[in-house]
Amino acid sequence: MTYGLGMLLDAGLVLVADTRTNAGVDNVSSYRKLHCLAHGPDREIHVACSGSLSASQAALGILLEGHRPDGEAIPALEGAGSMFAVAGIVGEALREANRRIDQALAPVRKAAACMLVGGRVGDGPPRLFLVYEEGNFIECKSDAPFLQIGETKYGRPILDRTIRPSTPLPGAVKIALLSFDSAMRSNLAVARPLDMMVMPSDRRQPTFVTRIEKDDPYFNTLSARWSDLLVEATMAVPDPDFMCAGVAARPLSVVAVTSGT
Amino acid sequence: MTYGLGMLLDAGLVLVADTRTNAGVDNVSSYRKLHCLAHGPDREIHVACSGSLSASQAALGILLEGHRPDGEAIPALEGAGSMFAVAGIVGEALREANRRIDQALAPVRKAAACMLVGGRVGDGPPRLFLVYEEGNFIECKSDAPFLQIGETKYGRPILDRTIRPSTPLPGAVKIALLSFDSAMRSNLAVARPLDMMVMPSDRRQPTFVTRIEKDDPYFNTLSARWSDLLVEATMAVPDPDFMCAGVAARPLSVVAVTSGT
Repeated sequence: MTYGLGMLLDAGLVLVADTRTNAGVDNVSSYRKLHCLAHGPDREIHVACSGSLSASQAALGILLEGHRPDGEAIPALEGAGSMFAVAGIVGEALREANRRIDQALAPVRKAAACMLVGGRVGDGPPRLFLVYEEGNFIECKSDAPFLQIGETKYGRPILDRTIRPSTPLPGAVKIALLSFDSAMRSNLAVARPLDMMVMPSDRRQPTFVTRIEKDDPYFNTLSARWSDLLVEATMAVPDPDFMCAGVAARPLSVVAVTSGT
Repeated sequence: MTYGLGMLLDAGLVLVADTRTNAGVDNVSSYRKLHCLAHGPDREIHVACSGSLSASQAALGILLEGHRPDGEAIPALEGAGSMFAVAGIVGEALREANRRIDQALAPVRKAAACMLVGGRVGDGPPRLFLVYEEGNFIECKSDAPFLQIGETKYGRPILDRTIRPSTPLPGAVKIALLSFDSAMRSNLAVARPLDMMVMPSDRRQPTFVTRIEKDDPYFNTLSARWSDLLVEATMAVPDPDFMCAGVAARPLSVVAVTSGT
């Protein structure tokens, strides 16, 4: 499966992807899914992929070679005047890659990829987009300052409760790692190493990428400490009144099934 | 959809279910899905249902009437000698209900229900089972002291990190409510009111059921306080080294797509 997460904060952009790919639990391997498509003074473009690995690699191949498999040129990322235009070009490549692979696999099964595209062009601020399988896309806005692809559910509760546009980058990175930890605990199709890209809004600070390895001691400590803190937080919240000893909050009776009450 | 959660702890059994049913987001209503099937000195049996409401109501109807729609008798819950036997009888009723409804709906769509069955028979301790759509079932054991049905993913991370067989009942109830809060934040198909049953292992304490209404002040406070505690906990964990100012953890380059590194 995979899990990809993008956060667009006042302080900058964070993109994270795991590396697990699988064709069943008996056929598992590790592939980078966070890629840098452009890195220069006028543009930085990064993508995180989920779904069919062959589809996402085909889309990236189209983008980097600048033409479809049939030879027809696609617009160059280097010439895009905005991140909106970049998302459109990535969408075009992804739609073409998904269409070809889906046609080939149609008798057997469905396969497609989708992507998070983040970066900046010219003097613009960092922007973040989710490009769907069909090539259409949405942009991340401050009402919901993150976007997810792949195994999105297990990792989402902590994001809903803690990520705000004002969250500082170090805090956002910790929350991103905890979100991945939640996904990895419950879904074997998400696993370390994780790849992370952090692009501060402040241009004086450099963008950087890092890899969290399988045995990363910081990640292990974060995960263990977090579990302890959750248990402590549970105890810090007062017990509900109805748990006071001996209180039967409602008399017991065999419920009529169809009453709906 | 719905979300149903059962926890089997040293201190007792907790069963919780929401009440939302829907046939699309434009057709939403509220039905009790936590039912008491037997309540007496020698047995207490409770079920939480998810999936097709017509299928779960049909299965409960078969159980309470004691025979299938074709008149063939099924074993009575009152005569079951153990919770294992109870789970088998519930499974038989559920399989029959699902088979009939699935046959009727087969040209249009698939529909079936599944159930959590908890309670105790005779002098035995509380036990908890998950009965699948086909009527087969698994029992909750201490390695994983909870079972879920329906919208299981959003509410699971907090369970994985905090629920242990030794968790006291008040703490387990709080964690159950937080698990439901997580599911409700992200999935409109899970909603209050919630129904909850708590059966202490200590027989001197009564079993009770309660309903958490839409405007329950304790639940609202718990949810808000929890979000604050999570943000505080995030700050309490040290920042990763690679977030120290100016550290580029890895030089940036446009990544070759097919390298896999």
